[in-house]
Amino acid sequence: FTTSCGGSMAKTKFEYVRKFETDDTCLRNCWIVVRLDGRNFHKFAEDHKFKKPNDDRAIHLMTRCAQAVMECLEDIVVAYGQSDEYSFVFKKESNWFKRRASKFMTHVASHFSSSYVFYWKDYFHDQELLYPPGFDGRVILYPSDQNLRDYLSWRQADCHVNNLYNTVFWNLVLKGGLTNTQAEERLRGTLSSDKNEILFSEFSINYNNEPLMYRKGTVLVWTKEVETRTKNAKGSGEEKGNDIVVEKSVKKATPLHCDLIGDKFWEEHPDILMDH
Amino acid sequence: FTTSCGGSMAKTKFEYVRKFETDDTCLRNCWIVVRLDGRNFHKFAEDHKFKKPNDDRAIHLMTRCAQAVMECLEDIVVAYGQSDEYSFVFKKESNWFKRRASKFMTHVASHFSSSYVFYWKDYFHDQELLYPPGFDGRVILYPSDQNLRDYLSWRQADCHVNNLYNTVFWNLVLKGGLTNTQAEERLRGTLSSDKNEILFSEFSINYNNEPLMYRKGTVLVWTKEVETRTKNAKGSGEEKGNDIVVEKSVKKATPLHCDLIGDKFWEEHPDILMDH
Amino acid sequence: FTTSCGGSMAKTKFEYVRKFETDDTCLRNCWIVVRLDGRNFHKFAEDHKFKKPNDDRAIHLMTRCAQAVMECLEDIVVAYGQSDEYSFVFKKESNWFKRRASKFMTHVASHFSSSYVFYWKDYFHDQELLYPPGFDGRVILYPSDQNLRDYLSWRQADCHVNNLYNTVFWNLVLKGGLTNTQAEERLRGTLSSDKNEILFSEFSINYNNEPLMYRKGTVLVWTKEVETRTKNAKGSGEEKGNDIVVEKSVKKATPLHCDLIGDKFWEEHPDILMDH
Amino acid sequence: FTTSCGGSMAKTKFEYVRKFETDDTCLRNCWIVVRLDGRNFHKFAEDHKFKKPNDDRAIHLMTRCAQAVMECLEDIVVAYGQSDEYSFVFKKESNWFKRRASKFMTHVASHFSSSYVFYWKDYFHDQELLYPPGFDGRVILYPSDQNLRDYLSWRQADCHVNNLYNTVFWNLVLKGGLTNTQAEERLRGTLSSDKNEILFSEFSINYNNEPLMYRKGTVLVWTKEVETRTKNAKGSGEEKGNDIVVEKSVKKATPLHCDLIGDKFWEEHPDILMDH
Repeated sequence: FTTSCGGSMAKTKFEYVRKFETDDTCLRNCWIVVRLDGRNFHKFAEDHKFKKPNDDRAIHLMTRCAQAVMECLEDIVVAYGQSDEYSFVFKKESNWFKRRASKFMTHVASHFSSSYVFYWKDYFHDQELLYPPGFDGRVILYPSDQNLRDYLSWRQADCHVNNLYNTVFWNLVLKGGLTNTQAEERLRGTLSSDKNEILFSEFSINYNNEPLMYRKGTVLVWTKEVETRTKNAKGSGEEKGNDIVVEKSVKKATPLHCDLIGDKFWEEHPDILMDH
Repeated sequence: FTTSCGGSMAKTKFEYVRKFETDDTCLRNCWIVVRLDGRNFHKFAEDHKFKKPNDDRAIHLMTRCAQAVMECLEDIVVAYGQSDEYSFVFKKESNWFKRRASKFMTHVASHFSSSYVFYWKDYFHDQELLYPPGFDGRVILYPSDQNLRDYLSWRQADCHVNNLYNTVFWNLVLKGGLTNTQAEERLRGTLSSDKNEILFSEFSINYNNEPLMYRKGTVLVWTKEVETRTKNAKGSGEEKGNDIVVEKSVKKATPLHCDLIGDKFWEEHPDILMDH
Repeated sequence: FTTSCGGSMAKTKFEYVRKFETDDTCLRNCWIVVRLDGRNFHKFAEDHKFKKPNDDRAIHLMTRCAQAVMECLEDIVVAYGQSDEYSFVFKKESNWFKRRASKFMTHVASHFSSSYVFYWKDYFHDQELLYPPGFDGRVILYPSDQNLRDYLSWRQADCHVNNLYNTVFWNLVLKGGLTNTQAEERLRGTLSSDKNEILFSEFSINYNNEPLMYRKGTVLVWTKEVETRTKNAKGSGEEKGNDIVVEKSVKKATPLHCDLIGDKFWEEHPDILMDH
Repeated sequence: FTTSCGGSMAKTKFEYVRKFETDDTCLRNCWIVVRLDGRNFHKFAEDHKFKKPNDDRAIHLMTRCAQAVMECLEDIVVAYGQSDEYSFVFKKESNWFKRRASKFMTHVASHFSSSYVFYWKDYFHDQELLYPPGFDGRVILYPSDQNLRDYLSWRQADCHVNNLYNTVFWNLVLKGGLTNTQAEERLRGTLSSDKNEILFSEFSINYNNEPLMYRKGTVLVWTKEVETRTKNAKGSGEEKGNDIVVEKSVKKATPLHCDLIGDKFWEEHPDILMDH
């Protein structure tokens, strides 16, 4: 019978190929970080006319996707995003998918990417998405709380360095009339203090007054909110037919734009590093 | 100066955390397979009222996404999909992203997922996508051509087994009037031949006449097509101002619904296993 | 010229095979433990007539080998041995051989094994070593101090459980006249308290008075000792030609037989867990 | 009861630490190569006055150890050694210790090292071994037969390059009266042909007549030998009391000093690459 060659006996014969799958379990008792990076986002930003140096719509969309990831996947305790990257921190004790690294990174990359297209119109309205974007991901393990804090500090320091540069660069180009090449040359070898000075003396901008969202990036933390819903009572008692108000405590992934490098944030959010 | 704490000196101090990144280079001279699987697609299919046992729109959308992955990423030589899964085979010699496994699996997962939302409306038209879907991914290495063929045969045998089961199950439910539980019980312990017999005697269906796309899944292979474009001549010669026809050879990821288990497919597509 | 086929040009041609070597760097900021286990040591012990349940010569030889490993390799902060196994703990910050796991485990296995044969005669004197012994090894990473302490506690608890069993078993066989099988049956399902009771009531042995080396295994810690050497003065001053005494502080790997599970040991040796 | 803190209950409490062990299974259907390298063998050779450029005793001892490894461990199909290194090739289908890389490399390193001390006196006789030697090891996987052959060719080409250099170097020093530094300078930048010329014109040595063992290193292959043993018949028949000769076919690891780079060796030993 012809289909037998594709039947369950055949399947058994080929099943040995499963033994080529390797185990990629993350070491226990370590923080699991998944970092996503946009693929060719320089071009993507240009193709979609992102405002320079920062486009609020793009930033808010990234944050919306990160919220979706946190709310849809399990065990994420904090997330941090800037530019075209987002880092998600899973709790040390997580046993989600038996701690398989490939599950962590592909679920995050997949969910973030589908959300990006799904929520695009909420932030870009009539402006069309020209093609589906891509994000790559990786898993990094951090054994100690200090290592994890240093990782997030590293990303936030990177945000600062890049945003200061971009702010000066685009002011030189857009307001100062320099070409991209001229602006690059002007900035070559300058220190932070030089860049602050250019902004202040030439464009009357005090960098420290720039929006925190640009300077600090976005931290997503869990907050509890009370949600009230009006519900039509269906019981048989005296409330029958009347509307009742139902309160429910829900966890939300809430964006903050604050310093992560000092102790203040961690003192205000002790639950992040706590054993879960 | 306040911003110095987030400046490049601070960044340098934290940069040691990069040393926690591990190398996940794929062994050379092996076929690199990335397989994606839909997350909770049973529920997703129900929520979006996919036709049972096979929904052509969903199948064509999956194929469209796989084409996008093949055309957007590098070094994929063949892909195979069935149900809510898709496998992508990268050539043995690929040096894309230095063969880092995480890059392969996250790029595929990300691009497939964003494409799923992006192309949804081309196949589901007015039917709304209710939420962004998710796909997980993994990398598997196969040292020999035979191992790779056996892998693809395994997935196609799985397609056959599942599709035969589903075809009988949904005929029993939708035409035979059984409940899901009754249909399950009816099928428990039956052989392929029993299922063929039920289809034939009770529903006058010859399983072998069912569409190949359902029975064999979808293989994507590269084909060359000649694309013609009409272009307004801008030269200074006699053609100036006239339209000219430009021919260009383009590679397309073309879907086939054929047997992968026997030798015929491989004899007809010798370039897949050839050194690239 | 004939040898050219084996010359440096040929070597270059084949050198691509180096790219198949994989990176096995140990995650930073984790304790690196290498545990060795004797291969077929049950048979080895019988072939060499080890005294049952404990042979002091064999234990001291194991300890001597572990000392050799600690003194010859780098960055080991503590070691623990019992039965035919030994665990070596490398400091968290070790960068020995760039933290490559294969280097750690093979160097330890190699050096321990060559030492076993080298020092055999110091403990077994005229009794001949019949064949070279084998030890396998593995690397395990522990992110926190507590994990490391729990690992060592696990091995010491294992020592206790096995030694109590073996002590009763061999008393039943050697003094009680039971066959091995009878002794096994007698002990099946017994609790610690039952075993203590058998020892006490049948053989007048209070298990707690058994030597600590048997009950606790051996911990090797670093101690500083002052070594004095007499040296013939070669200078030109008045000491010329006279002997002088030179003092030198040397680190020694010193064996202890004490409890590792409670806090006492760790309080007395704070330097082990300290950052190095 | 005091010992309870070290008892089986305690053991259970600590056993979670086993979950930190990682899986290091070798990819299936690949050749598994373990290569050992002597640790600080330059110094070891000097301390033990090895003859330069080649010491037959040292080479034969290395070969003896490699034979011990092949005969004691499982699934090794060929080995190759030169200088202070040895490579062992396990068959592709090996399932020894479930293909765990750490088992392969530590067993080889351990057994080789203990054999080195054990067999030392058979080759160095009265010359004392001053301290136990060390060897590190690593595992490398090769997917194809060609990759494996190229690996072995690489090692043999390395043998050639080094041995030619060493032969000239030590002739310049020992017979030519140059210092080490002068010999190094003399050889800097020379080609193979230059080195051959120096040997021939200054020392009347035709390099191609040097012993194959030095120029090609040592390959160990399995050969079958018939072993005859005289046994006293214990049966009740007419042979009773008489000696009988018993023949037994035994596999031996036999050293060859031949070219591995060309096809001849592989044609003469087809069983090495064959499926086992």
